[in-house]
Amino acid sequence: MKVAVLGTGMVGQAHAGKLVEHGHKVVIGTNNVSKTLAKTEPNAMGRPPFSEWIKRHKAIKLVTFSDAAKHGEVIFCALSGDGALKVLKELKTDLAGKVLVDITNPLDFSNGFPPFLSVVNTDSLGEQIQKALPQTKVVKAFNTMNADVQVAPKEVANSDHELFIAGNDDWAKTKVKEIAKSYGWKNILDLGDIKSARGMEMILPIWLMIMNAKKTSKFNFKIA
Amino acid sequence: MKVAVLGTGMVGQAHAGKLVEHGHKVVIGTNNVSKTLAKTEPNAMGRPPFSEWIKRHKAIKLVTFSDAAKHGEVIFCALSGDGALKVLKELKTDLAGKVLVDITNPLDFSNGFPPFLSVVNTDSLGEQIQKALPQTKVVKAFNTMNADVQVAPKEVANSDHELFIAGNDDWAKTKVKEIAKSYGWKNILDLGDIKSARGMEMILPIWLMIMNAKKTSKFNFKIA
Repeated sequence: MKVAVLGTGMVGQAHAGKLVEHGHKVVIGTNNVSKTLAKTEPNAMGRPPFSEWIKRHKAIKLVTFSDAAKHGEVIFCALSGDGALKVLKELKTDLAGKVLVDITNPLDFSNGFPPFLSVVNTDSLGEQIQKALPQTKVVKAFNTMNADVQVAPKEVANSDHELFIAGNDDWAKTKVKEIAKSYGWKNILDLGDIKSARGMEMILPIWLMIMNAKKTSKFNFKIA
Repeated sequence: MKVAVLGTGMVGQAHAGKLVEHGHKVVIGTNNVSKTLAKTEPNAMGRPPFSEWIKRHKAIKLVTFSDAAKHGEVIFCALSGDGALKVLKELKTDLAGKVLVDITNPLDFSNGFPPFLSVVNTDSLGEQIQKALPQTKVVKAFNTMNADVQVAPKEVANSDHELFIAGNDDWAKTKVKEIAKSYGWKNILDLGDIKSARGMEMILPIWLMIMNAKKTSKFNFKIA
């Protein structure tokens, strides 16, 4: 399948790397290809720059956001929560009719830890994205755990923990479930329509508190 | 130990019943004792009225909120989220120096399902209660699962799931942990100071969505 990933960070790298392993035709979209490749410094978290990563993943092409959206039948949105909506609105036509997997979280760390959510309670970033792209089948998924766990769930308790998904289109949710199963997910809990993105995004503050208490991000919620 | 429970609903009944079984001297506080006992109709959820329940629990006294607050060394706040703060402010003097276990959730169902939170994101009901009662040691706990699971965790996956607690006073948290262990809790995760009540309250929307999806309230979050 032709898959696109928007965003060159940890989450984008995790999905793109796993999807290409599974035989999909994968591109990664970025705002400015040459600028992204020109960065040779480690990022703020000390991780190697994307330009290093892409050298080790020759089968993956780095393209513009627009070319990525055109390429993908399924598109993963792995952009930061504060910039995603603006980028996606510009891709409205290219994304029409397609499945968009929304992994974003509207976290705002401007007041330090714990972060607050820039969209919350009676709305969610997932709903805002669906509203901005009415022709696109938005599926909220993977936003409630660390990037490595998203694509390698077996590394935590042999996959005995939960992937939540939400969205208005059952066919699109089935597509995303298939991809999730190919990653190794066993417990996939469909929470209903895109309104359920509220609950999925509002779990992030306690996720961060648990990470802080346990000193690891390699965990996930299981429903006991 | 002398324990008081504020609130005569499912949560109050669950804790009072369990605490008296364990040999504590338990009172339940209500706004108006004779009015509470005069209700003989099942409640909105079809449960028998409190007046029936108290007949089967002769060792538990029903008293006014103020008498309950005076009686308890540890006081459980099992009031509804929309009324709790007003009641507690009036008990400020009686609650000074004591441990207050805050089980409340600021859920507002006025717009239907899913509910929104009346306090959220950069504040929490737990923090508001601690701020209103600076002399009281507020410990947020038990708000993230159904009343039956709160006091009988073994009935779900033999207690292999999480009780989150948060509060500013370590001694008070130790007291609450001891009570929780007496209920059968094994995994108790201290999330830090009362600010962590934000994350604990913001988990409620997804809890309700999971209940909706699974058609049961007898579950809890486990950290895998």
